[in-house]
Amino acid sequence: MAGIGDDCAVLRLPPNHEALVTTDFTLEGIHFRRDWHSPECVGHRCLTRGLSDIAAMGGEPVAAFLSLALPRKLPQAWLNRFVDGLLNLAKRHGVTLAGGDTAESPNGILADIVVLGSVPKGKAILRSGAKPGDRIYVSGELGGSATAVKRMQEKPKRRLSARDYRRHFFPEPRLELGRILRERGLASAMIDTSDGLSTDLDHICKESGVGAEIKAELVPRAVVGRPARQVEMRLALHGGEDYELLFTVPRGKRIPAQIAGISLTQIGAITRGKRVFSMSGDVGYELQPKGWEHFTS
Amino acid sequence: MAGIGDDCAVLRLPPNHEALVTTDFTLEGIHFRRDWHSPECVGHRCLTRGLSDIAAMGGEPVAAFLSLALPRKLPQAWLNRFVDGLLNLAKRHGVTLAGGDTAESPNGILADIVVLGSVPKGKAILRSGAKPGDRIYVSGELGGSATAVKRMQEKPKRRLSARDYRRHFFPEPRLELGRILRERGLASAMIDTSDGLSTDLDHICKESGVGAEIKAELVPRAVVGRPARQVEMRLALHGGEDYELLFTVPRGKRIPAQIAGISLTQIGAITRGKRVFSMSGDVGYELQPKGWEHFTS
Repeated sequence: MAGIGDDCAVLRLPPNHEALVTTDFTLEGIHFRRDWHSPECVGHRCLTRGLSDIAAMGGEPVAAFLSLALPRKLPQAWLNRFVDGLLNLAKRHGVTLAGGDTAESPNGILADIVVLGSVPKGKAILRSGAKPGDRIYVSGELGGSATAVKRMQEKPKRRLSARDYRRHFFPEPRLELGRILRERGLASAMIDTSDGLSTDLDHICKESGVGAEIKAELVPRAVVGRPARQVEMRLALHGGEDYELLFTVPRGKRIPAQIAGISLTQIGAITRGKRVFSMSGDVGYELQPKGWEHFTS
Repeated sequence: MAGIGDDCAVLRLPPNHEALVTTDFTLEGIHFRRDWHSPECVGHRCLTRGLSDIAAMGGEPVAAFLSLALPRKLPQAWLNRFVDGLLNLAKRHGVTLAGGDTAESPNGILADIVVLGSVPKGKAILRSGAKPGDRIYVSGELGGSATAVKRMQEKPKRRLSARDYRRHFFPEPRLELGRILRERGLASAMIDTSDGLSTDLDHICKESGVGAEIKAELVPRAVVGRPARQVEMRLALHGGEDYELLFTVPRGKRIPAQIAGISLTQIGAITRGKRVFSMSGDVGYELQPKGWEHFTS
């Protein structure tokens, strides 16, 4: 790679690969609060947002670009720790921080992360590939991140332990899982659960022109906190920012119980209709996409 | 291109090309003011910042990505006109708006533009290629943008006419010029004058490990305003955001008076030293890079 400190970064993609580009804001007061989130956590989550989008296409990250606008009075230590958190995650996934922009912020910390990735030509896993009869799987557990937000909203003065709510404070992007699903041709459509299961499943259905039926009791609910407890169903169905992978699997493909150490759970199937139902035994209700609204929910 | 509305945009680069990536903030109160700049102008300038970086590498733009955080109360008309201004410029340069992110802004309008470009492998024009003896050229005229800012700072209530200060309100990125310079192998190093001549020339010198000597009286000073007047030397030397191209030319290469309709002016030469001098006859002084600070200067 050439071009650090140049007008643009210059990057070479592997031969016969396409470029993936994703860009995500991390804004103080919207995506994090300085009294709730350590600088390392903010840096980590900032990059996770981008890497998780690459994972959801079955791609591999090439480089990240960070645009950062900071208030004049921000302590240097905050910035250093933020960058540590971001670079620590970048290093583990072999991602170079290849550039970005800096500016003074009139108000609050503003970050925008861009990730450039690559995927073999024509092999990106889109949201639009789901077919009736495909089974629906989700990785890991859901609702852990939203539960942390709920706890902090209930008692804004209490600082939660990152260890007890790891999926909220230091979510791991599912890059290896995404890549393996793509290499083995196991997923017909995929998305990351950044907006919450109900919204993200709706995105797949809308883009694929299909419906879905899930069984709520099959949804893997996270176990978080101290003492550790299973999260509410509502937060597993609608809470965002777990950064798990939600994907559909064509008939005839077998999915192991885990890939890359991450459990995979079948939660339902794609249907011919246009609507998404959540079933409990024979009784079902339409699952409305309840867009995850960060701290304003 | 696939992937609009997907987790990432999926883009194909021409064979044997490298990817160029650039990202630039446009922040209310720092880069623009709603009472000084029309929404169309803000959209246009936002994209120009990215396209100009692509031009400065001799590259061609492939796609743009816009991350936009908006205050809750922003009138829909402002957003529509902003997008019009951005798309109008994008269309003229064959650039697709391929994705981005949206968020609610706690304070003021925040935009981050990302541009993906391409350049034949190994052919990007870096800042680091200048050699002693190379001549220094600049395109168009300098100081026009900074002069508009100065006028608005002097009389904050007066709204300037975009027609009288075109280089400030609707700067054209020099994409065609940059591409032709690269195709003909005419430039050894290049940068766009976003930070101002003194700072941008310093960037080339630092990256190339060389010095420079320019003749201030050769610097093409913009003629702006009504009645039209030549801008102050100080603003031509140090004012930013003209988005012209500053480049060095190896010995033996001839530069025409214009390329793609844009005048090209020799303003000095690269030297063996490490310092940048501005000469007037036999008398010279060291040209300090006076970083362009937008409205805070």
